[in-house]
Amino acid sequence: MEIAQVLHMNKGDDETSYAKNSTVQSKIISVGKPVMEEAILGILCTHIPESIGIADLGCSSGPNALRVILEILDIINTKCQDLGCQSPEFRVSLNDLPWNDFNSIFRLLPTLYHKIKEEKGGRFGPCFISAMPGSFYGRLFPSRSLHFVHSSSSLHWLSQAPPSLNWNHRMPMNKGKIYISKTSPSSVLEAYSQQFQKDFSLFLKSRSEELVPGGCMVLSFMGRRSTDPTTDESCYQWELLARALMSMVSEGLVKEEKVDSFDAPYYAPCAEELKLEVEKEGSFNIGRLEAFEIDWDGGSDDKQAALQSRGRKVAKTIRAVVESMLEFHFGGDIMDELFKRYGELVDDYLSKNTTKYINLVISMFRKDY
Amino acid sequence: MEIAQVLHMNKGDDETSYAKNSTVQSKIISVGKPVMEEAILGILCTHIPESIGIADLGCSSGPNALRVILEILDIINTKCQDLGCQSPEFRVSLNDLPWNDFNSIFRLLPTLYHKIKEEKGGRFGPCFISAMPGSFYGRLFPSRSLHFVHSSSSLHWLSQAPPSLNWNHRMPMNKGKIYISKTSPSSVLEAYSQQFQKDFSLFLKSRSEELVPGGCMVLSFMGRRSTDPTTDESCYQWELLARALMSMVSEGLVKEEKVDSFDAPYYAPCAEELKLEVEKEGSFNIGRLEAFEIDWDGGSDDKQAALQSRGRKVAKTIRAVVESMLEFHFGGDIMDELFKRYGELVDDYLSKNTTKYINLVISMFRKDY
Repeated sequence: MEIAQVLHMNKGDDETSYAKNSTVQSKIISVGKPVMEEAILGILCTHIPESIGIADLGCSSGPNALRVILEILDIINTKCQDLGCQSPEFRVSLNDLPWNDFNSIFRLLPTLYHKIKEEKGGRFGPCFISAMPGSFYGRLFPSRSLHFVHSSSSLHWLSQAPPSLNWNHRMPMNKGKIYISKTSPSSVLEAYSQQFQKDFSLFLKSRSEELVPGGCMVLSFMGRRSTDPTTDESCYQWELLARALMSMVSEGLVKEEKVDSFDAPYYAPCAEELKLEVEKEGSFNIGRLEAFEIDWDGGSDDKQAALQSRGRKVAKTIRAVVESMLEFHFGGDIMDELFKRYGELVDDYLSKNTTKYINLVISMFRKDY
Repeated sequence: MEIAQVLHMNKGDDETSYAKNSTVQSKIISVGKPVMEEAILGILCTHIPESIGIADLGCSSGPNALRVILEILDIINTKCQDLGCQSPEFRVSLNDLPWNDFNSIFRLLPTLYHKIKEEKGGRFGPCFISAMPGSFYGRLFPSRSLHFVHSSSSLHWLSQAPPSLNWNHRMPMNKGKIYISKTSPSSVLEAYSQQFQKDFSLFLKSRSEELVPGGCMVLSFMGRRSTDPTTDESCYQWELLARALMSMVSEGLVKEEKVDSFDAPYYAPCAEELKLEVEKEGSFNIGRLEAFEIDWDGGSDDKQAALQSRGRKVAKTIRAVVESMLEFHFGGDIMDELFKRYGELVDDYLSKNTTKYINLVISMFRKDY
């Protein structure tokens, strides 16, 4: 099994869970909301369909999973109320890879349905929330069944690390890297860029078959402003994770070969790469394409943040996301120590740097046939 | 929360799991297969839809969950091959209550899709398998979205035990009963029958809105041949479970009030009751209605069966099904002891009796509007 196939956010609701450590992803949903609202109103401006298909791709679990869905339903419902008409029948699909914790989302649904009924009352259309497990790099849904597709904090995950790395990544100058960096040979940079192009193009083609003409997508994911893929804003979080791993290698706690053979199935594209792929694939017109800066710790307005270092908070955020992959490759025993060291490295780095994540948000509309 | 809401088959794949103890339900699927095949071919005889909606209600987890789906796809695919045409796009929904272990089914899907591709090749239509959590006593799916609905070993579970039992069930003569029996007052029998009518009627109404005209259902569940609801074949498995509980009451291991306040949300109807409800609701024409005898241990053709008593096997089967409800009400500590005693009582009973389960299978077609 490929590392990318086991990727899932940490389950449950304990200290290391994604549910408790997803402030960054929540922030990303917030900054993307105006783009999403504009896009949804765009598809409703000509007419309100009787039945509307909505999909959230890479929904994960925890509070973010249902939050986006509720926001989408709210936007549509408010528009229908403004027009004085009954809202449509909502067909909602939650998608993620088969190892995602769908059970925990399902247990929240009875309360959600109850809340919807209480708050929105009788003019709110029937709402059917289902789950569609599988990779979004390929077909997931019946033909022309969707009106709106949303995906947040997911498309920077590739279907796999570039397979060609196996032979040209293993050079002495590249030891101890788990993602591209300033010292990566151009063949490695090229391999990552090509894997992204291949994956994103397949994503667009698959969705173009599933969306109705005029249907819309809003995608939001990690990216970069620079055309240089080795810029700090797009990969320094991996650089520090590699350093934490290498510090454990130096003490004999992790085997160096293990670090050498780990390649993150991740790519943070720039706006130009996105535009090029959308144009090449040809099914969509781009609406908006915007870049937002996001603090590594998601911004610190919660009380808990004051009680812990920023490094520790960043480490918990990253751990909730990548632990499944690291555990698959390195084993579970080293995780506590690894993320302790990682948090310290992040603290040190953030005391001297102001690097932020760049989050790209793109809206696009399915062309008519 | 109601007991009926927490009902789910035992998770995982250990000794007490449903996955390892579902021979009876598997047998029930087997005996119902000819009725299912006839019904599906019935809806395909006029034309093959481009896209076909299929739902399995109360799918549970373990090997049975995907087995029915594969059988349905096989029947349709074989028919298409006979006609020399491309098979349709399959939209498959797996339904069960939100506490069902959907995660474990999802993890089997990549292998299933791979197997389908290998075995059936290019003329097999795209297949999209999703999950729809929720109670089938109410709407689950979009209007007119389904062509075929299947449900096996599920509809004998009521949405709740009859609420009116709270006041008239608590009589000295009825102590230590957890389901209807020969000593139940007629008010109790009537309350159970009415709860079944109410639930089954809502089930029919909901499905009538979800099925296309001409669409079809095949339902298979525990029932009885006699019109008398207290006949051994419909409730003696509960009688023995009550006795096992009462033997623990007599030793102070379980409180008597706990047994008195447990009412199984279960009803095994007779064919006449089914017919009456289908006719009263009015949306369906009945195709077939058949009754099959099923051994309490599902018949013993597997090797493992020879190594354990029939009572022990029956106890494991029942435990995998009802443990979630009993645990919710009595706590988990008593389960091992309870089912040990239950197995012994079943062994003793089966040494003197030949009681079997009665499984009803009914097919019905949605009338045109």
